[in-house]
Amino acid sequence: MIVIDKISDVRNIIKEQKLSGKKIGLVPTMGYLHEGHLSLVRIAKNHSDFVAVSIFVNPIQFGPNEDFDRYPRDLERDLKLLEKEGCDLVFAPSVEEMYPSELLTTVNVDKITDKLCGAFRPGHFKGVTTVVAKLFNIFTPDIAVFGQKDAQQVAVIKKMVEDLNFPVEIIKAPIVREVDGLAMSSRNVYLNPEERKAALILSKSLKEAEKLLLNGEKNANTIIKKVNEVLNSEPLCKVQYVSCVHPDTLEDLTYIKDKALIAIACFIGTTRLIDNILWEEKYNAKVYDEI
Amino acid sequence: MIVIDKISDVRNIIKEQKLSGKKIGLVPTMGYLHEGHLSLVRIAKNHSDFVAVSIFVNPIQFGPNEDFDRYPRDLERDLKLLEKEGCDLVFAPSVEEMYPSELLTTVNVDKITDKLCGAFRPGHFKGVTTVVAKLFNIFTPDIAVFGQKDAQQVAVIKKMVEDLNFPVEIIKAPIVREVDGLAMSSRNVYLNPEERKAALILSKSLKEAEKLLLNGEKNANTIIKKVNEVLNSEPLCKVQYVSCVHPDTLEDLTYIKDKALIAIACFIGTTRLIDNILWEEKYNAKVYDEI
Repeated sequence: MIVIDKISDVRNIIKEQKLSGKKIGLVPTMGYLHEGHLSLVRIAKNHSDFVAVSIFVNPIQFGPNEDFDRYPRDLERDLKLLEKEGCDLVFAPSVEEMYPSELLTTVNVDKITDKLCGAFRPGHFKGVTTVVAKLFNIFTPDIAVFGQKDAQQVAVIKKMVEDLNFPVEIIKAPIVREVDGLAMSSRNVYLNPEERKAALILSKSLKEAEKLLLNGEKNANTIIKKVNEVLNSEPLCKVQYVSCVHPDTLEDLTYIKDKALIAIACFIGTTRLIDNILWEEKYNAKVYDEI
Repeated sequence: MIVIDKISDVRNIIKEQKLSGKKIGLVPTMGYLHEGHLSLVRIAKNHSDFVAVSIFVNPIQFGPNEDFDRYPRDLERDLKLLEKEGCDLVFAPSVEEMYPSELLTTVNVDKITDKLCGAFRPGHFKGVTTVVAKLFNIFTPDIAVFGQKDAQQVAVIKKMVEDLNFPVEIIKAPIVREVDGLAMSSRNVYLNPEERKAALILSKSLKEAEKLLLNGEKNANTIIKKVNEVLNSEPLCKVQYVSCVHPDTLEDLTYIKDKALIAIACFIGTTRLIDNILWEEKYNAKVYDEI
């Protein structure tokens, strides 16, 4: 496994791999890897011949009052995990390598970034699309894998790729959960034992939404109300939003036709957690089968 | 020479060319080609093995009161000229091909787009950088050639490429002029004979600036004042701006050190024309030697 921190080294290695006919897979991460990330690496391996993982805690996607400084980092541990997965290349650049001069250029996706997390994290998605555009230009990957846990991120990146004609296929990977249902997140490490237990309320509330959907409930407000009720039953949980939207356009649904994304964000203590389920009628079965 | 209008065809052809080891050169244009454009094609041929020219009058870079509808177009004539130059591929897409769904994603360069033309054409450069990002992603060229006549455009695109790590080298081509000094522009066709004659005041005013620079003048305001005086001596000419800036950062200069861009925009009748000279002390000679 090659570990590098210079953009020019990435370009040289990728060029060589491409010349030998290899299909390049990219998994962009902020490190502090968990099973969710590793599942992305496995999916990338199934869809490409040379898998690169970037590890970069991207400052421009954090708000001024967010957790950039205390975001968990452990490169040594990450490298061991990636080595075990058979990852081919790890790119772990410094902030200076990624932003060497005053950044004047940004990539922005309108509208679908105003909702869900975007409504509460102004500038967040502009930071995400800008760094992902940079990574796409550095790696020129054939495929890139993103986790469904950040459902809005996937929708935003897919729209960016479509609008700007990036020559890359975006693969969406299912949410990976702890055995008790909590969606895996690097931020789970912030939770104390009491909060860790309380955090189960997120997946529990979505399980209730799923029950309603399986029973044929089509009214988005009924589902939103139920999810809110369950979340509010937990004293340590403060709801930020509960939304029922179309998974591609992120437009609010009133009536659920073929598919819906039920997405939630809550504070458990001071830790902000997100989770979601993707409902697709056409499968006539639950997509949310990991809990 | 291949002539196509579908993005998927471009991708297939470029992929084939790259597999056979060819270096790709791109010349993005809005068509209605003149000697200036053809000089870009020649430069591209000197720096690559397969030269593609895009012809696309990009609606999103025109303001609501600008000349998108009446912008001159003559694809048949353009193709003949490009064939003669030995161009390999022409991509002339429809607006629908380039913008098939609601465009939510834009690429924006801050600060340096607020000055010069950007101050008078709000949104213009956002339209330029967005379409150029699309073209870069469609062609994945090794080099791309832009004319120095749109000096701000070159600076903005260079900054976009640097900030977003586009894997392309930007080559700046010198201004090509008519024998009497008028900088070539597709918009020159708007000028009636009287205006055509009056339009010479632009290059004449820059010639005066050059004389001052050659005589050692370092004070930007002295040069700006002189250029304004010359331009205002022509009754058909209405000055929009005369600026003396650093050619990369486009920051206003008060004192000229090593290099300077003297850029002007004027209306001759209802036609907006731009011109500029690039001064580089280190050559100790005029760069502006085409008039």
